[in-house]
Amino acid sequence: MEYSNSSNTEQPQTCLEITMEVHRVVPPPHQSTIHKLKTTLKETFFPDDPLRQFKGQPTGKKWILAAQYIFPILQWGPHYSLSLFKSDIVAGLTIASLAIPQGISYAKLANLPPIVGLYSSFVPPLVYAVLGSSRDLAVGPVSIASLILGSMLRQEVSPVSDPVLFLQLAFTTTFFAGLFQASLGFLRLGFIVDFLSKATLIGFMAGAAIIVSLQQLKSLLGITHFTTKMGLVPVLSSVFHNTKEWSWQTILMGFCFLVFLLVARHVEGIAVGRTFAALKNYKVDGNKEMMAIGLMNMVGSSTSCYITTGAFSRSAVNHNAGAKSAVSNIVMSITVMVTLLFLMPLFQYTPNVVLGAIIVSAVVGLIDIPAACQIWKIDKFDFIVMLCAFFGVIFISVQDGLAMAVGMSIFKILQQITRPKTVMLGNIPGTDIFRDLHHYKESMKIPGFLILSIEAPINFANSTYLNERILRWIEEYEAEDHKKQSNLQFVVLVMSAVSTIDTSGVSIFKELKKTVEKKGAELVLVNPLGEVMEKLQKSDEAGDFMRPDCLFLTVGEAVATLTATIKSQVSNHVV
Amino acid sequence: MEYSNSSNTEQPQTCLEITMEVHRVVPPPHQSTIHKLKTTLKETFFPDDPLRQFKGQPTGKKWILAAQYIFPILQWGPHYSLSLFKSDIVAGLTIASLAIPQGISYAKLANLPPIVGLYSSFVPPLVYAVLGSSRDLAVGPVSIASLILGSMLRQEVSPVSDPVLFLQLAFTTTFFAGLFQASLGFLRLGFIVDFLSKATLIGFMAGAAIIVSLQQLKSLLGITHFTTKMGLVPVLSSVFHNTKEWSWQTILMGFCFLVFLLVARHVEGIAVGRTFAALKNYKVDGNKEMMAIGLMNMVGSSTSCYITTGAFSRSAVNHNAGAKSAVSNIVMSITVMVTLLFLMPLFQYTPNVVLGAIIVSAVVGLIDIPAACQIWKIDKFDFIVMLCAFFGVIFISVQDGLAMAVGMSIFKILQQITRPKTVMLGNIPGTDIFRDLHHYKESMKIPGFLILSIEAPINFANSTYLNERILRWIEEYEAEDHKKQSNLQFVVLVMSAVSTIDTSGVSIFKELKKTVEKKGAELVLVNPLGEVMEKLQKSDEAGDFMRPDCLFLTVGEAVATLTATIKSQVSNHVV
Repeated sequence: MEYSNSSNTEQPQTCLEITMEVHRVVPPPHQSTIHKLKTTLKETFFPDDPLRQFKGQPTGKKWILAAQYIFPILQWGPHYSLSLFKSDIVAGLTIASLAIPQGISYAKLANLPPIVGLYSSFVPPLVYAVLGSSRDLAVGPVSIASLILGSMLRQEVSPVSDPVLFLQLAFTTTFFAGLFQASLGFLRLGFIVDFLSKATLIGFMAGAAIIVSLQQLKSLLGITHFTTKMGLVPVLSSVFHNTKEWSWQTILMGFCFLVFLLVARHVEGIAVGRTFAALKNYKVDGNKEMMAIGLMNMVGSSTSCYITTGAFSRSAVNHNAGAKSAVSNIVMSITVMVTLLFLMPLFQYTPNVVLGAIIVSAVVGLIDIPAACQIWKIDKFDFIVMLCAFFGVIFISVQDGLAMAVGMSIFKILQQITRPKTVMLGNIPGTDIFRDLHHYKESMKIPGFLILSIEAPINFANSTYLNERILRWIEEYEAEDHKKQSNLQFVVLVMSAVSTIDTSGVSIFKELKKTVEKKGAELVLVNPLGEVMEKLQKSDEAGDFMRPDCLFLTVGEAVATLTATIKSQVSNHVV
Repeated sequence: MEYSNSSNTEQPQTCLEITMEVHRVVPPPHQSTIHKLKTTLKETFFPDDPLRQFKGQPTGKKWILAAQYIFPILQWGPHYSLSLFKSDIVAGLTIASLAIPQGISYAKLANLPPIVGLYSSFVPPLVYAVLGSSRDLAVGPVSIASLILGSMLRQEVSPVSDPVLFLQLAFTTTFFAGLFQASLGFLRLGFIVDFLSKATLIGFMAGAAIIVSLQQLKSLLGITHFTTKMGLVPVLSSVFHNTKEWSWQTILMGFCFLVFLLVARHVEGIAVGRTFAALKNYKVDGNKEMMAIGLMNMVGSSTSCYITTGAFSRSAVNHNAGAKSAVSNIVMSITVMVTLLFLMPLFQYTPNVVLGAIIVSAVVGLIDIPAACQIWKIDKFDFIVMLCAFFGVIFISVQDGLAMAVGMSIFKILQQITRPKTVMLGNIPGTDIFRDLHHYKESMKIPGFLILSIEAPINFANSTYLNERILRWIEEYEAEDHKKQSNLQFVVLVMSAVSTIDTSGVSIFKELKKTVEKKGAELVLVNPLGEVMEKLQKSDEAGDFMRPDCLFLTVGEAVATLTATIKSQVSNHVV
């Protein structure tokens, strides 16, 4: 049997004869509700199956594994060798050389005394070395967290008029941030972080980098009367209304130092880029890491440290410098301690302009122009989300910019859910393959058949729309039919992409069936998946759409069988 | 060529030879960003294509169509005949006989004077007859809106101590509710209503019916000191702490009247059920209707009417009584006017116990036990959502119950998005069909191939999970492989169900490709759809996964071609 296409005189070759043996759509094997619930919970909270190593082990071994799971140092510690230590000591000293100036600078960014920045580069790395499971992560204060902490606390307390209360608040904030982080990890809710899309992060980081850099204009230009606000507008107005305070000595010194740092970074910058992928490929248990970092902050807060986490650029440097284990963090920590004990007086008097230049050079790397271009190329909506995060951070506030971008990302997903795609399929000549008519131009309509693929799960948020959209497809088909003098005989719904369905979704099939039958055609379902099959069957007491002659495993088989049925009916009628 | 299955000694028959002619995956035809945006906006806001009748019409005709679109009465008015009027007059008188007692009762439910209920059954139907496009809809006050209005206003003003302010507030509320409704319709945002799932509505309506009925215990038991709160607990405690106020005469009278009404309803009840589908099949433009009902309320509020809308049970009665047009609403409206003018003194003194019985008998029909059972059977989570709405309304408040249920429904969708299904496919012997191994027990694995189907759009909220989940599939496959001494050679990702992708989603393919290649296998994509194909191509500057030998149109062709390639490589190697 061959498909004929009314708009094409050439008769396509087909191989459908051989698939005339029709394969039945069967209901999926029964699963109890408890079992389904267990699967859902497992996939929601334990998608990485973190406890798989415990399976089938004797009890003693399980205890050892549990201890190693909580304290990864027990796992790599016993195998630690001198050659590994040699690598770690180089890496540790390298990141210490970054951690000391950055620690002091970031503490200033958070309106905290410089020494707090050094404390925060000393205690948390030690805690992380015991609890953390990443080889490369260099922990310590980071620019964005310092900026946000500083700006949030400044809204409550002035760091100038009440420095002690400000410090106490900073430590309390650190404790509760750590508690919150550890709880999220413990409750396996780390996936919340996934709601920050790549576009949001790129826009946010670039915006934050600019906000942080603008704040440094105070030090770089030598202005004494500077705004305490964060936005672009107040900072620039503060800069240009105080031009008489600009000091050319400071500007020259800051500019030279900044150029020096940026040039030095540029050798390094390429390496960081290359390392990113390598770092990402390194697989760690995200929830476990959140607990480790949360605990690290809780311990830190009781030893005069403020918020710390894994610093991206220092981790990349750590990896490139050949770090083999968390011992590089210990080396860094000891170096910082030595600095604290013996060299602190030197650092205490680092000029503000130098600190400003260090901060600018560190955050400038957070602006990722190539990634922004890539996003523009791939997805225009993601680009808008990115701009939203960027301008929101610059003009409104760090928190609002982030919230706006996350809101827009979620809105986009909801839009996709409420308006799923339906496409009309056609047969690729010479095959039993059916594909999107619009995409595969060579594919052809089969007269009398309207073949639609529903490309999303069906639920309450889109069932009304899908019902209306399918009716519109039918009306459009009939309007076209009218010209061609052929009749719609079968509406074939391809369900391969409908992974789930709910009660609202199930009910549209009954309505559709009635509407299609009123038009003298028949509704045919192709390849309903396990869950969908099960629910349709349960709702279909009369056996209306679960009849074997309305249910096929592939579009090819459906079309071949139904065409054969019509032909035999026609020939019987003629006889 | 045949697939061999290591766990099955029987060699399956296959028809793959004939599909060895491989069909190329082609990029979709180019569409500009503007065009895509236009399509998205059209599907979001105009899915029902409300202006299709205007297409290709001359300007004069367009003006007439526009007038008919805004005032549907211009469309059916000119063709109206006496025979239609005969049907409408019967239907109009029938619904008037319901609308008068219900109008008075529902006004009492909203703590408004009975006459306001009658006004609301007089003016809005006239407005709707001009603007509305439904044949069957009977408009007037409804129980749930009356209940919510009454309870919300009571929180601000006491209807007893300040009745004038209470009335003014009720009319103001009605005006703004109408304005809001009309704006939603005008901005084509009516789809927001879709977020109330069937399960939410059934639970909510049942809960509201019980709350409304409980309030009537005041009248039915003749209690004078009754709580002003809505919840189950305060009402029941109020009932049982005032047992001495119960009056047996009132109880007897109320009980008898209620039984009479319920028995009378039971004849009618079946008809309502049967009509529901018929009403639903009647297609109206939802946004247009929202505008009509919103305007109706704005006009109503300036003529001493409170919130009105389409009443479900009265609409069903209207349909069954043979209504042919909105004239039945006009007939009802005139009947109500006559009542207002001449019979109002009679109704003014209707005993509270009778009004209570009328309300209970009207709302009892909102409790839909069979639908609840059906939901339990089909979807257990939807059942929980329903219970949540039900108990939330009964024990907390009408608004909170609704909000909780909507929140849970959206949470379920987000859970499905963050944790999409991936299933392993196998070949159904004797065909080139590949289906879920777990669902189709006869399907078989192909040695060396891991064939995974991703059953959801890929976006920032699930890309991390999908990456981890696919890696877990590979690890599990390798663990099994290890026992069988065969090697994983191809990871085939079937993308038929991935309707959309974003930048975060695109980036996981690069990572996956690297990981798979590290394991000595190759990543193969099957049937990426238009948008996905386009974005993958744009992100893939190096041409890594868009190589023709990694990209196939069907799983059958992929497996056949790749198996043939390996065989030829092996034989070349041997030669």
